[in-house]
Amino acid sequence: MTAENLHYHEHRVSRKSKEKRNNHQSRVLWFTGLSGSGKSTVANATEKLLHDMGLQTYILDGDNVRMGLNKDLGFSPEDRTENIRRITEVAKLFADSGSIVLTAFISPYREDRDKAREIISNQDFIEVFVSADIEVCELRDPKGLYKKARAGEIKGFTGIDAPYEAPLNPELIVETDKNNIEDCAQIVIDYLVEEKIIRKTLV
Amino acid sequence: MTAENLHYHEHRVSRKSKEKRNNHQSRVLWFTGLSGSGKSTVANATEKLLHDMGLQTYILDGDNVRMGLNKDLGFSPEDRTENIRRITEVAKLFADSGSIVLTAFISPYREDRDKAREIISNQDFIEVFVSADIEVCELRDPKGLYKKARAGEIKGFTGIDAPYEAPLNPELIVETDKNNIEDCAQIVIDYLVEEKIIRKTLV
Repeated sequence: MTAENLHYHEHRVSRKSKEKRNNHQSRVLWFTGLSGSGKSTVANATEKLLHDMGLQTYILDGDNVRMGLNKDLGFSPEDRTENIRRITEVAKLFADSGSIVLTAFISPYREDRDKAREIISNQDFIEVFVSADIEVCELRDPKGLYKKARAGEIKGFTGIDAPYEAPLNPELIVETDKNNIEDCAQIVIDYLVEEKIIRKTLV
Repeated sequence: MTAENLHYHEHRVSRKSKEKRNNHQSRVLWFTGLSGSGKSTVANATEKLLHDMGLQTYILDGDNVRMGLNKDLGFSPEDRTENIRRITEVAKLFADSGSIVLTAFISPYREDRDKAREIISNQDFIEVFVSADIEVCELRDPKGLYKKARAGEIKGFTGIDAPYEAPLNPELIVETDKNNIEDCAQIVIDYLVEEKIIRKTLV
């Protein structure tokens, strides 16, 4: 046979069809905050609730991105920007696949997050500022990184000798130094229900 | 409150839980072949069948990767390798999210595909060789690229002045110069059923 074979009506399965399959809309929940603020913990708790509600979810965080897709990148300002750019593009693909994707990265630069919003689209991008006083984060120091940064063993550590630019107008703020993790996750769920992105009846 | 707040039992939603939600296992279907062989067409037809069976699917191809995640990459051998490396890592994330992900890229180098198999894991990686004689592909020339390559307007075009290294031992071969698109897609579906990755009863 010949070229004729490819005269096939190619039709891509749309995002809308995938959202319909999953019974919810897709979004990117972008968790940002200092090291030790609880981003990854709140994101995991939120994902657990969403999954238990029967939704299609995925988390992108240091555990699955830094050792894989972005293992060629370091922590210079340029590499941090490229790190966030790639995460942005991958999150966009997951949203296109009908998933609620949660990203948990410090993402310290406002410009990078605004760029993420622009690429992903304002409708799909939900910025969640995971807020905690740096003193609290340093006290928690779950990975011992503040200690190393104070000792000068790590250079360019966010909050110590590199800036964290807090969101000016995030969709959500969760304060892990005032509320417990379950309550913080519930705030995110309530928002998604209120915005009709997911249905409460699924609980 | 203090560091106490983060003493929360963090539990990641596992791939197994997501596969259970979706009622099928996740895999990477890696379509490889010449330009014009019908990779993207067969991948789209396969995805349509899987989606209609109620499965969670996603396609990665030039349309959603080259303009986004990999827009900084060109077509030099190094950039092609990095292109495939990133696609590999993203496909791995989708498999981890409980999806059947279909990748449709020429991916001309055997070494890059073997590396993809190694990163994704032999169990999860299903290589689908989309085979068609180069004369047929050139006759089809859906994007007019062979014409440009013959005219010297494109350098390093696979099959013309850059190599295509056919798979030595792919899980599947579909011959688009001998079978029509629907039949090629059905071959992939039958394989997934036979391997108990998806259930026939879902049809």
